[in-house]
Amino acid sequence: MTTSVESVAERAGVSVSTVSRALRSVPGVSAATRKRVQDAADELGYSASPAASRLATGRTMTVGIVVPVLAKWFFGKVIGEATHTLRQAGFDVLLFELGTRAQRERFFSSAHLHGRTDGVIIMALQPSKAELESLTAQGQAVALLGAEAQGFGSVSVDNVSAGRAAVRHLLNLGHERIAFIGIRDEESSNLGGVPPLQRLMGYREALAEAGVPGDDMLEQFDENSVDGGAAAMSRLLVTEQVPTAVFVASDEMAFGVLKVLRKAGLDVPRDFSVLGFDNHELCDVVGLTTMDHEVAEQGQDVARILLDILQGGPPANLSRAVRLVVRETTAPPHVLRTTPTAPDSPHSAGHPGTP
Amino acid sequence: MTTSVESVAERAGVSVSTVSRALRSVPGVSAATRKRVQDAADELGYSASPAASRLATGRTMTVGIVVPVLAKWFFGKVIGEATHTLRQAGFDVLLFELGTRAQRERFFSSAHLHGRTDGVIIMALQPSKAELESLTAQGQAVALLGAEAQGFGSVSVDNVSAGRAAVRHLLNLGHERIAFIGIRDEESSNLGGVPPLQRLMGYREALAEAGVPGDDMLEQFDENSVDGGAAAMSRLLVTEQVPTAVFVASDEMAFGVLKVLRKAGLDVPRDFSVLGFDNHELCDVVGLTTMDHEVAEQGQDVARILLDILQGGPPANLSRAVRLVVRETTAPPHVLRTTPTAPDSPHSAGHPGTP
Repeated sequence: MTTSVESVAERAGVSVSTVSRALRSVPGVSAATRKRVQDAADELGYSASPAASRLATGRTMTVGIVVPVLAKWFFGKVIGEATHTLRQAGFDVLLFELGTRAQRERFFSSAHLHGRTDGVIIMALQPSKAELESLTAQGQAVALLGAEAQGFGSVSVDNVSAGRAAVRHLLNLGHERIAFIGIRDEESSNLGGVPPLQRLMGYREALAEAGVPGDDMLEQFDENSVDGGAAAMSRLLVTEQVPTAVFVASDEMAFGVLKVLRKAGLDVPRDFSVLGFDNHELCDVVGLTTMDHEVAEQGQDVARILLDILQGGPPANLSRAVRLVVRETTAPPHVLRTTPTAPDSPHSAGHPGTP
Repeated sequence: MTTSVESVAERAGVSVSTVSRALRSVPGVSAATRKRVQDAADELGYSASPAASRLATGRTMTVGIVVPVLAKWFFGKVIGEATHTLRQAGFDVLLFELGTRAQRERFFSSAHLHGRTDGVIIMALQPSKAELESLTAQGQAVALLGAEAQGFGSVSVDNVSAGRAAVRHLLNLGHERIAFIGIRDEESSNLGGVPPLQRLMGYREALAEAGVPGDDMLEQFDENSVDGGAAAMSRLLVTEQVPTAVFVASDEMAFGVLKVLRKAGLDVPRDFSVLGFDNHELCDVVGLTTMDHEVAEQGQDVARILLDILQGGPPANLSRAVRLVVRETTAPPHVLRTTPTAPDSPHSAGHPGTP
């Protein structure tokens, strides 16, 4: 038995045409009514028929979502949430993975979306002015996630502040030798993007503010995966003066860091503190302290911003909060090996800038 | 600089038209040439232009992917891999999440795909005869993942055998009181599907073959998530006679099981053995023993099967192997509390069927 628009109208206590307009986000329906209709539709498992909407509006009722990579936790999460919100409003989703610079150039240089989608959500890529003009020329509404552009809707977080806050937590615990593991931005790929670089800036700023000297050896970059994090941590373990803590730009990489530390026989957080970024569902399983940037909500936000633009609303710019979630992988430092000849040791002879 | 079709032709040592035909999977190009062209295209980051292909063939050059839920590791992985393979052949992907029975009925009852896609991949849903006829009537090529249907292409694994093999590993270690945690199939949702039920069948068969009596209390079902697995394990911990091992139908749920056991102060695998299903990237981080069913390869397979059908080839049916990956969460049982009055205890007084 298919849930009918009539049963949704009955449950919400409104007319069938109001249900139709509310679910298609057509202007002229109050927010309260729209919510009541949406709740009734959700309860009954009803979603607007895209085919009927296409006929009624002449729109494609399809939205493009553009990502640099599909098979990553962050993108699975934001695409899932955005798609859910778009489908509730009767839109289908056309998915584009632009994994390399060549694919990206090809995508933006052709009239790829014209007549196929009404709008496009660009995730974790900073589009150039020319790229945005190409989309506008194809009649596309545009909303960005993890980037901003003058005159376009967006949702983002302040990744510089977030990176600074993460490193301050480690500094406040008493760590001085703090490493950074970031997402590698291959010359040929799109996988890095703006947010991870901003997290590195935050790391450097926090160290500078605390008067702790930077050290190139402590900044390691690799692919955004468990294996990439493990490889980066393995490189840190063979540095001349091993750090006591690391801020990792993604939780998936931080899981790889924990794996290597466990295999090396190092106790976390007694011997080493680890702080991630994302608040992945599995943080709670391994006890990972991390920065929560409301990933699911970002996905819902960017879809709602695009839907508002498609209704003729102004392009909104939202910023989501980032907060520290303390679990079990961060603690005050514990010096692994105190050199008996410490006063004469070159490593403890008062580094410049160390308080 | 955009990579041109000419540079791919030069690197592969073939003509431009051969590159074009090889990348669009048009018949008449040998497998060896196709591979050489594909390798050259991959190295240079080149993908065929869908717009050009659309013009040349009159096809939509778009494939629909239908899933019950997007924001799950398994679906992120298979969608990512399938999309990658489809995009290499010049196809775009239209994504459909059919989370409820009502959405599913609506999707299959309308001419949703006609003229929008050339084919559709249905993942983890067993389509009915009428649903398949609806797709065929809309001119769609069809390939299934995790299900089979007479006359249609598919990739799947033998989940009954896999479930039996998982439980046999636990039986062979000496466990007798073995629980099962499965994915709950809500009346109103699509989220369960066939494979998880087959894993339950395999569990029951293995116990029966070993002469171990079944116990309804040991079969627990919940949503496919860390929290769902944690909730199910919490229920097992308050049964009258707590099991010594559990086979969990998804790794994400198994991670929740490990979390609860850790919080309960139980040592894995000394006090309790846990065996998952999927071989999620994070198994290696937490040491989870699991069943690997080649998830990434399944995603590539189903895309290739659909591409072959679109070229006029016969619908292939592939079966992927499932293998046990032993890590650190399974070991012989260790009796937590031996009742001093064991010979008179009703629980140890020789259950019927216990060897």
